[in-house]
Parts: sequence; C-alpha cells; structure tokens
Amino acid sequence: MNGAITQIEVKLPKNKISIKKLCAKYKWDYLKIIEKTGIKNVYHSSKDESAIKLAISAAKKITKKNKKIDALIYVTQSPEFFLPTNACVIQNRLGLKKNIIAYDINQGCTGFVYGLYNAQLLLQDNLINNVLIICSDTYTKNIKKDNKSCLTLFSDGATAILVKKRKNKKKQYIFYTDGSGENDLKLHFSGNQFVKNKIPELSMDGRKVLIFTMNYVPQIVRKTLKENKVTLDELKYVIFHQASKIVIENLIRKLDIPLNKIYKNYDRFGNTVSSTIPLCLYELRKKKMISKGDKILICGFGVGLSIASTIMEV
Amino acid sequence: MNGAITQIEVKLPKNKISIKKLCAKYKWDYLKIIEKTGIKNVYHSSKDESAIKLAISAAKKITKKNKKIDALIYVTQSPEFFLPTNACVIQNRLGLKKNIIAYDINQGCTGFVYGLYNAQLLLQDNLINNVLIICSDTYTKNIKKDNKSCLTLFSDGATAILVKKRKNKKKQYIFYTDGSGENDLKLHFSGNQFVKNKIPELSMDGRKVLIFTMNYVPQIVRKTLKENKVTLDELKYVIFHQASKIVIENLIRKLDIPLNKIYKNYDRFGNTVSSTIPLCLYELRKKKMISKGDKILICGFGVGLSIASTIMEV
Repeated sequence: MNGAITQIEVKLPKNKISIKKLCAKYKWDYLKIIEKTGIKNVYHSSKDESAIKLAISAAKKITKKNKKIDALIYVTQSPEFFLPTNACVIQNRLGLKKNIIAYDINQGCTGFVYGLYNAQLLLQDNLINNVLIICSDTYTKNIKKDNKSCLTLFSDGATAILVKKRKNKKKQYIFYTDGSGENDLKLHFSGNQFVKNKIPELSMDGRKVLIFTMNYVPQIVRKTLKENKVTLDELKYVIFHQASKIVIENLIRKLDIPLNKIYKNYDRFGNTVSSTIPLCLYELRKKKMISKGDKILICGFGVGLSIASTIMEV
Repeated sequence: MNGAITQIEVKLPKNKISIKKLCAKYKWDYLKIIEKTGIKNVYHSSKDESAIKLAISAAKKITKKNKKIDALIYVTQSPEFFLPTNACVIQNRLGLKKNIIAYDINQGCTGFVYGLYNAQLLLQDNLINNVLIICSDTYTKNIKKDNKSCLTLFSDGATAILVKKRKNKKKQYIFYTDGSGENDLKLHFSGNQFVKNKIPELSMDGRKVLIFTMNYVPQIVRKTLKENKVTLDELKYVIFHQASKIVIENLIRKLDIPLNKIYKNYDRFGNTVSSTIPLCLYELRKKKMISKGDKILICGFGVGLSIASTIMEV
C-alpha cells in the first residue's frame, strides 16, 4: 500500500447546539443522557447547509492551492441526488481537472476507513498521485424532533482528506459486515418511489448497535493488530469511531487499552458519522501530537452493520 | 492488475415492453424513434421488483454455489436506503460470509467499468480472492408517463459479475469526469428533505449528452489504446455502453471501428445503465464468441457526466 495523509480540513455547520439547553427545552433528563453519551454539543445543518455544500467548504481549503487531484472519493449517506454521482457535481464545483476518477461510496461510521482503503488502492495506479477523500453527512436533517436518542447523539459535518503517494509498509485492512442488522440504524423510504407526504426518518435501536459493537469490534481490533504484526505498545494512538461515551469506554475496558493511547473528542463534536475519525486526526495534527512514522489504529463501526479497521502510519 | 471475470448472470424484470406498442398507445412516431434509438424493447420493473431484488436474483445464480465472496461491490443509482449501505443488506440476504468488505458505488453508465476497476484493485489485497460486482438500476420507476425520450430508451435490470484473482498483464483504466453537465441527466430531489407530494423525476437533455459523448469518448478510447499499447487490430471486440443506435453508430464512424469488432444488443434490451456492458459480455460468453486471452475494449459514458474505459482480457 502506498499513500499518506498530508492535509485534513473540517467544516461543521454554524448551528452548534448545547445538549444541556436541548434537554431543558424538551424536559429530557440531561444528567442521565450525558452519563451515557458524554456528548455536550452537537451540530445541526441548516436548510442551506447541504452535505455537498459542507463537503465543498471543507475541500476548498485543500483544492484552492492544489487542483492536481487525480481521484475524488465522496463518502456519504446523505446524497443529494441519486443521479448524477454527487462526486461529479463536486468535481465541477471545486474546479478540479477533468481527467479524474470520481465516485461516491455509501458507507456510514466505517466510511472513512473504506475511503482510505480505496484511496490507498487507487494510489497503486501509475496515473494517480493525489487522492481527495471527502466525508460528509447530514443525518440530523432526517431526525424527528421527539427522537431523543438520535437528536442528542448525531452531528452533521464534513471532512476533506488529501492522500498522497508515499511508499509505506503495506498495511492490512480488516472488514466485517452483518446486514442482518439492517434495521438497527436506518433511514427508510419505500424504493425510490418515495412515500408521499412523508419525509424519510432516521430510526435507531441503540441497544442492538451497542451489542454488535461489543461482540465484534474487539475481535476485529485484535485481528488488525495480528495481521499487521503490530502490538498495542507500538501504537501511538487508537482512534475509534466517536459513537458515544458508553461505547468507547466499554471498548477501552474490553481491549485493555492504556488511556494515554486513546484520542477522543465526541464530547465537543458528537457523532459526525464518517467524519469522526478524520476529525480526531485533524486535531492530533493541529496540536502536533503525532509525528511522521507514528502508528495509529483506526476503527469504524456501526450502521450496516459494518466494521472496518486498519493501522495507518502518519 | 489481477483478476478475470469467471461468471456473469443477468436478471431482467418480467415486464417486457414493445416500443412499437408503446408508441401506438401514446401516438408517438415509432419510425422516427426507432431510427434514432434502434431500441425495440425495454424492460420496466414492477412495484415488487426493486433494484435490490433484481440484484439478488442475478447474484443468487453465482452465490448458491459460491459463498466464498471476499468483497461485494454494489453499483447502483437506485438505492433503496440512504442507510444502511445497500451492499450490507445484500450480504445478509445472499447469506454471504461476514468477513467481507461490502460497499455501494454510485455511478451510472460508467458504473460497471468503475466496479471492475475497484474489483481489480481489491484483488491485490492478500485476503481477497473473489469479488462479486452487482450492477442494478431501476431508472424507469422515476420516469413520467409523458417523458417520451426516457421512456423509449431506458430499461431496468441487474447483472452480477464474479471476478477471481488471476495474474494478467496490468491494464490501464482511463477516466473522465465533467460535473458541469450535472443537469443533463438527473434525478432530482431537494436535499434529503424530499419535496412533499412529489416523486423525484428523471430528466434528460439527450442532445447535450450526445454532444459530450461525441466530443470526448473518441479521445478517451484512443487514450485507452495508447496507454495500454494495444492497437484496434489486436482487439477482439469493442463494447460501448449501449446508449442508443445514434450514439453507437456515430462512435463507430468517428473511431473507424470495423463492424465485426462491435458487439451490441441495445435493440433487444434498451439502455440498462450500468448493466449494458456486462449484458453484452454475458451474451458473448454464452454464445462462445470469446475465448481466453481475447482483448476487449469496454467504454462506459453518460450521466455525471462521466467516461470510464479500459481493455479487459477474457
């Protein structure tokens, strides 16, 4: 595998919502909720802030100086069109060159890991030197006002990640898919004949997603270490998908990970779906907490149900 | 690049529609239409025949004997869910193993070429030996009854393609993307806040798509030959996306391709979007018109706007 991340940019919606205030408004038990989720703020996109607009805002910070993008991977579960491919629309709006491969990948909480895997595969192509991954989701547009568990958990947001050709030691990715949990986190509409008068609505069975996570993520993390012949000691950080406090604390306990190897920011940003892991990497880079050669285990899990994990080198 | 197609299966909807009868019904000029499109029949999916159901019917013919699929790529512009990933749902319904990579790619008329490119990249992974690509689209569900040009052109359908690890000479893929044509073929809804009371509707500016195709497909085909150091003479076949008679005949003329190197079946199946090229390959295999080592140039083009082309080895 070739490729290293050289730049990460972030765009969050303007509307930052305090969970404390939200709970006061709806008379929800704030202390009970924060104890489980650990999330203090979420970001809700406005009508004008579509997934593509957030994506473009994040990506512009990369592409205004670098138009030589050879491949654009747009990871989203908030498409604005069935067709054309959203990545084609983004190619034009960013003013990227036309001899480019551009496609959308539909994946959620594992989306960034899928995107990075695809980027690293693409970089083996002689004609490809720079891959731009953009993760963007706007789950909250489809959350009903009385859906307490989703409304206090999910944030909208976009991250743009530039991956450049670089010879690294090949890293093995580990994937796990169990579509029998398709109803555990779902945005449903009836075929593409949309149900009249009805806005599709996000539904989640948090307990079932938690059980899946606890049953399978630890073994996938262990397999990722084993297949890459890397020990927990050799890792600088472990970055989990920022699902919520209860999920991450249980994973840390079950895998016996030293706390100084964990980076987390769910308290400040909520669960931004495919952007949670790049949002952590963005902060680690900005705060200069990582340097070249550092090994980081990244693991996404959730909707699908799906798990994707690897070890990346800074 | 590694990988060779070892099996292709097809599922078309039950409802086969004669364009002659359709024209009689709506009082459209059949002779004028057939002169342009060359399409005698199209297939319309019924309410019960969703893209996923067609996909599963096609893929079952492969997976009932082979459950050892390591990667599932679902190419569609007719998703049934924004989330979960449609490929996860298909993994479960086909009873595939769980240590599998499964994701959706959104691409249209270039979809199969994008899928094959991804499959061949994935096959470079040590843990991946069998990739299942499924292309499935149901454009006609979103065509209004008075939309003559779309209704006499598009068909629904699914194709499943098994790609196995095999050492071939590396093949170069050529891609071209121009999102400035986003409105030339579009299925629009307003963000994922669907417009109330309105079923999203397919719209096409056939003239603009034709101009794009004629301006750029010939140079992409020539580049594909050049980058792969293959001459037209060395090809057994050229398979274009089965857009319509006028498109394909103009491409043949412009590129000066001998007619015995062209395989086409749009007259019998219409434009099945991402399935047109595998549908041609399926027939070539079935009729034993190709054998191991034959070189075939495949080129998809259309919605996006997007072009994808390569030379594959049988």
